[in-house]
Amino acid sequence: MTQRVFVGGTRVDALPPDNRGLSYGDGVFETMRVHRGAVHWRDAHWVRLEEGAKRLQLRLPGRACVDAHIDELLQAHPDDVLKLVVTRGAGGRGYAPRHDADPVWTLSTHPPPPPPRPGGVMVRWCDTRLAMQPLLAGIKHCNRLEQVMARGEWSQDGIDEGLMRDTGGQAVCATAANLFVRHDGRWTTPPVDQCGVAGICRGWALSALGARIATLDVAQVETADAVFLCNAVRGILPVARLGARGWLPHPALAEAIGKLADAHPAFADRLENP
Amino acid sequence: MTQRVFVGGTRVDALPPDNRGLSYGDGVFETMRVHRGAVHWRDAHWVRLEEGAKRLQLRLPGRACVDAHIDELLQAHPDDVLKLVVTRGAGGRGYAPRHDADPVWTLSTHPPPPPPRPGGVMVRWCDTRLAMQPLLAGIKHCNRLEQVMARGEWSQDGIDEGLMRDTGGQAVCATAANLFVRHDGRWTTPPVDQCGVAGICRGWALSALGARIATLDVAQVETADAVFLCNAVRGILPVARLGARGWLPHPALAEAIGKLADAHPAFADRLENP
Repeated sequence: MTQRVFVGGTRVDALPPDNRGLSYGDGVFETMRVHRGAVHWRDAHWVRLEEGAKRLQLRLPGRACVDAHIDELLQAHPDDVLKLVVTRGAGGRGYAPRHDADPVWTLSTHPPPPPPRPGGVMVRWCDTRLAMQPLLAGIKHCNRLEQVMARGEWSQDGIDEGLMRDTGGQAVCATAANLFVRHDGRWTTPPVDQCGVAGICRGWALSALGARIATLDVAQVETADAVFLCNAVRGILPVARLGARGWLPHPALAEAIGKLADAHPAFADRLENP
Repeated sequence: MTQRVFVGGTRVDALPPDNRGLSYGDGVFETMRVHRGAVHWRDAHWVRLEEGAKRLQLRLPGRACVDAHIDELLQAHPDDVLKLVVTRGAGGRGYAPRHDADPVWTLSTHPPPPPPRPGGVMVRWCDTRLAMQPLLAGIKHCNRLEQVMARGEWSQDGIDEGLMRDTGGQAVCATAANLFVRHDGRWTTPPVDQCGVAGICRGWALSALGARIATLDVAQVETADAVFLCNAVRGILPVARLGARGWLPHPALAEAIGKLADAHPAFADRLENP
């Protein structure tokens, strides 16, 4: 892992310890797929970051500055995963946000994701539920204890992801991916206006696959003709098994993966070894 | 502010940037009142930290090690506020908690709180609601965006604190204090099993004042005979005004403040200038 730390527009050696990210998770982040030096969905990631910053009334560094540092970093890491975390900066005691503090932000590169499990991912239901908080729903903020607890529920290699329900019992997403299910020839994904994240790949799939947004209960997931998870780093991940329920490869899933590969070359490698 | 950073049992120069506190708010904290070199409610703070760590399955540094570093730090800061943050440590990408990572923790000292406003604090209702999440309720974890947003709702000097309701509309607490209201000669404080923090001073008041735990709606707060806020740093803060409703000093409040001063000398200074 390579990591760089910045305060405002200046690169610094170390993270200031009075950082509100550390104290309160007072920040937003993006995790991006890089392929041959290019960041996939670069504009969409920035738009979501801006939406989160607006919701939290948090000041972002200038995009030109962030972009320049990203481009410099990617010269040595042209096919990694890139993570950007922006926090409100100084002010480690007292909840009152300081409006004059420079944002503290980090850029880090991480190894590309492992190839997807052949035939599809193995999924379970998590016991950890997502609280319903419209003020924080949809954005990619740094208050992620629910996801940490959900992901901590299993350690077996045989399970790749966990599906999460909200406290009302409706299916929402996986711990680190959005959820799409197919019924009657159409893809559906749950709303993210009470909890969950408006994923970048979810946004692409809504448009490219003509999917609809609607609540989904457990039975509607388990009786679907096909299910996939998706995120901006791994693209589309067909689900092969959810608890006792299994799915065979579905032609609509192959079609969706093909469309994504056409749109974003990082995901085209998948077609060689589907 | 003085701040020290530790990884496991070792003091280090800087906060590791791949810290899960920064990325996910994956940690717990305590804010303690120090008076003449002694930490008030030292055991109670540690017990709550342990409860939080157990809930999050997060490893704490050894208490003897933490205590030794606290005692050393307090030699130069015998009357400050002391903050301890313990995070899960390394692992800045991927929600899966690493069980072998050493906890990363910080100790910091901050100036003592300002004297309370004569006659009592001025309070408002916040628009920001608390989501109901029993898995995180009661403990003092580092996912505090709701409190940050609530505290960001006002900037006037004339307002000292904001009261928060849960998403169901029940009163829960202030942004950084617990809430007690008096009806029919008895103090009541809301439960913290869906949201809110089980405050250390709240625990003291429940026992010392014979208070009861019960849900409180907005009208029950506004029609109370007396209202106070409390936390471990500031002790008991009588409420003088909540929106249009004002309260005159109540003898039961003077009695409560006197009991707290008897129990904990840091709060006795208050009696000289009530």
